[in-house]
Amino acid sequence: MQQFRKIDKIQIAQINKYNVIRCLMREGPINRAAIAKRLGLSIPTVMFITETLLKSTFIRSIGKGVSSGGKPPEMLEIVPERFFYIGLDIGRTMIRAVAVNAVSRQVACVEEPTNNPAPEKKFVDRIAGIILKIAGQLKTENNRILGASIAMPGLIEKETGVVLFSPDFGWNNIPLQEWLTAKIPFPVLLENANRALALNEVFLMGGENSHTTFAVNLGYGIGAALVIGEDLYTGASGTSGEIGHITALPQGPVCHCGNRGCLEAVASGAAIAAQGKSVLESQGPGSRKASKIRELAAGDPEKVDAALVFRARELGDKEAARIVNSAAEHIGIGLSMAINVLDPDRLVLCGGLMRNGPFFLEKIKASIETHRMRQAGRAVIISTGRGGEYSTANGACRVLSNSLWRNRQLPV
Amino acid sequence: MQQFRKIDKIQIAQINKYNVIRCLMREGPINRAAIAKRLGLSIPTVMFITETLLKSTFIRSIGKGVSSGGKPPEMLEIVPERFFYIGLDIGRTMIRAVAVNAVSRQVACVEEPTNNPAPEKKFVDRIAGIILKIAGQLKTENNRILGASIAMPGLIEKETGVVLFSPDFGWNNIPLQEWLTAKIPFPVLLENANRALALNEVFLMGGENSHTTFAVNLGYGIGAALVIGEDLYTGASGTSGEIGHITALPQGPVCHCGNRGCLEAVASGAAIAAQGKSVLESQGPGSRKASKIRELAAGDPEKVDAALVFRARELGDKEAARIVNSAAEHIGIGLSMAINVLDPDRLVLCGGLMRNGPFFLEKIKASIETHRMRQAGRAVIISTGRGGEYSTANGACRVLSNSLWRNRQLPV
Repeated sequence: MQQFRKIDKIQIAQINKYNVIRCLMREGPINRAAIAKRLGLSIPTVMFITETLLKSTFIRSIGKGVSSGGKPPEMLEIVPERFFYIGLDIGRTMIRAVAVNAVSRQVACVEEPTNNPAPEKKFVDRIAGIILKIAGQLKTENNRILGASIAMPGLIEKETGVVLFSPDFGWNNIPLQEWLTAKIPFPVLLENANRALALNEVFLMGGENSHTTFAVNLGYGIGAALVIGEDLYTGASGTSGEIGHITALPQGPVCHCGNRGCLEAVASGAAIAAQGKSVLESQGPGSRKASKIRELAAGDPEKVDAALVFRARELGDKEAARIVNSAAEHIGIGLSMAINVLDPDRLVLCGGLMRNGPFFLEKIKASIETHRMRQAGRAVIISTGRGGEYSTANGACRVLSNSLWRNRQLPV
Repeated sequence: MQQFRKIDKIQIAQINKYNVIRCLMREGPINRAAIAKRLGLSIPTVMFITETLLKSTFIRSIGKGVSSGGKPPEMLEIVPERFFYIGLDIGRTMIRAVAVNAVSRQVACVEEPTNNPAPEKKFVDRIAGIILKIAGQLKTENNRILGASIAMPGLIEKETGVVLFSPDFGWNNIPLQEWLTAKIPFPVLLENANRALALNEVFLMGGENSHTTFAVNLGYGIGAALVIGEDLYTGASGTSGEIGHITALPQGPVCHCGNRGCLEAVASGAAIAAQGKSVLESQGPGSRKASKIRELAAGDPEKVDAALVFRARELGDKEAARIVNSAAEHIGIGLSMAINVLDPDRLVLCGGLMRNGPFFLEKIKASIETHRMRQAGRAVIISTGRGGEYSTANGACRVLSNSLWRNRQLPV
C-alpha cells in the first residue's frame, strides 16, 4: 500500500518529460508522433517537451525520416556527448575506470594494478589521479561530467560516502567520498562494487523485463546484489548482499572478516588460492607425486592464485579438482539459499572465477539442483555475466545515472 | 527507474480517494479540514471525496468535534461493519479462522484441530464448512463479506490458487482455490502462511515506518517472508521465503521436502520432536539414568513434541538442552544469512517455538551475534511476534485487504 503522497501537475509534467527522455534513449532516433503513441501522450504535450529538450541541447534533430503517407517526420535523438558519467571499479587486484556518454556507451577506459592500498590517504590521491586522467581523455568541459561514481568491495554508508568495513582492503571507517570530493571538480558517489556490477548486468539483459535479479560476484571475494526491476534493493542500512559472509562451514577456516567458515573463506578466489598453496606446501620439493600446482608455480607458493589451481585441475590434478569441486559445491549451496528465499527470475554469476570455462558453471548448477527446494524459484534462469572486465566500472556509471533519474536531476 | 506509465486525472482522483480512506482508517475520527491538511489536498477536493464515501455508507458522521475557534467541525469515521474479511490459518496442528471488520478489528474467531488432511477433497469440504460457520457468526449479507483468504504452509501459485507443494500436508498440485470457490458465495484467495503472518506482524508494528521486515515462522516447520515497507516481496514465481529449506547441515537428516540437512530438518518443532523421540527410544525402559523426556512422555515416543523437549530442558535434562541449543544455533546461522543478504530493519521471530520462554530468543540472538558479518545489518531490531495464535489468520485478511487496495477494488 502506498504512503500518503499527493501527485500534482508539476510532478506529472516531470514524469512525462522523463518518460520522453527514456523513450528517446531506448528507441531513438524516433519522431514525435511515435513518442506520443508509445507513451499515450498528446502530440502537443510531446511537442512542448521536445522543444525544451532541443533548447537545452539535450536532444537534436537528425533530419527527416520515412513518411508513412503525409509529410516525412523529423527524427530526434539524444545528443551522445551532451554529458558523461565516470565510473571506477576499485578491486583488490585491478583498478578500472570508464567514461560513459549520455546514451550509455563506454567512450573511454583505463586500468592499472591496485598494488598496496595503504596508507589510505595516499591511495585516495591515486584514485583522484585516475579520475582526472579519464576526465582529461573526454576533452569536454567539467560541467558536462555529471560525476564520478566509485564502486568498491565492502560495507558502505551511502549517505555519508564512508567505507565502513572492507575486509579486502583492511579498511574501517574511511571517508572516501569526502577525501575525493576535495580533489575532484564534480560530484563523487560511492557504492558497493557488487551492486554496481548487478545494475550493469541487469541493464545488459534488458532490465525492464525483469522481476528480480540476484547477481553474484565470484572473484577474489564473494558478494552479491539484488535488483528488483531496474532498482537496487539496498536494505535498511545499505549493507545487503553479503552472501560471501554467510556461514558455509561452522567449523571452517577463519575468514578475513573475523568470523569462521564464511562462504568467502571456503569458496572464493582467495580461498581457492589458499587451499592450492597449502597443497603445494604440504609436499616436499622432491616429493615423488608432486601435484601440478607445485609444477605450475615452480615450487613458489606466492605464485599460486585461483587461476593456477583451475589450470592444474585442467591438467588432471586430483587435489586441484577436489578444491575446485568443493568450491562449486559450497557456492551452489549458498545460491540455493538465495533461490529458496528470494525466488529471483535471474541468477547471474559474474567475476573472475566464472572465467575458467563452462565446467565451473555446470558444477555450480549441479550443486544448486541438489540443494534447492523442489518447485522453489521455478522461474529462475541461471547464466554468467555478459559485461566482461569493465562491467563493474560501467555499473558504477549506472549507479550515478539511476540516482540522477530517481531524483530528477538530469541537466535537462 | 520507473517504466513508461502515464498518470492521468482519473488516476489522481483515485489516489486521492484512497489516501482519504487511509487517513480515515489511521487517524479517524477526523474532520475534513484535518484530512485536507494531512494530505495536502484542497478542502473542496476532500469535501467531494467524503461526500461520495458518505453516500456509499463507507464512512459516517459521528457529530461535532471540538472547535478551534470557528464552527465546531463534523467528525467522520469509517463504518466498521460496512464490510468484512474472513481469514483462515490452515496449520498442520490447528485450523484457525477469523473475521475482521472494515477498521481491521477481529470480530469473530473459531479454531479446531487439523487432524487428518486426507483425502484432500474431503478436507476442503471441512475448510468450506469453517468459512461458512464464521460467515454465519457475522449476521451480515454475503455481499458485505469481501472474500475468504486462506493461509497455509507450502509453495502456492497465487494466480491460479494452486498448492504446488506442501511438505507439511504432503500435497502436490491441489487446486484449493478452485475447489473452495465452488462452495463459497464470495471470492477466495490463497497465500503462503508465512507471508500472511509477516503482513500482520508488520501491521501491528506500524509498517508505514518500516523499511524491510523479515518475519520468520518457527513452528512445526520453518518459513519466512520479506515485507518491504508494507508490501510483500513475492519473488518471481511466488515461492520466496523458504528459509526452512536452506541447507544447514549438508550431511544432516533427510527433510520431508526430499533434500538433506534443511534447516527445517534440524531445527524446526518437528525436528526437535524427532530428536527428542530418538533420545527416548535410545534408552531402555529401565535404564538407570533415564532422561526427563522419557519421564514426561511416560515412555511413549508418540507423546514427544517440541514443547515436551523444552519442558524437559527446563527440568535440567542435558539431552533436551543439547537438542534445543543446537536448534537455536542453527536458526541463528540461518538468520545471520538473512541479515547479511537482506539487511532488514526488523527481524521478527514468530511461531510456536518462540512461546517457550525468553531464553530461546536469547540463544538465537547469541548465535546471530557469532555468525553475522560485523557491521552488516546495522539497523536490525530483533524481536518476537506480537500477534499471538491468531496472527496468521489475521494476516490472511491483510493479504486480501492489500490486494483490494492495490487494485483499487474496495467497494467505495
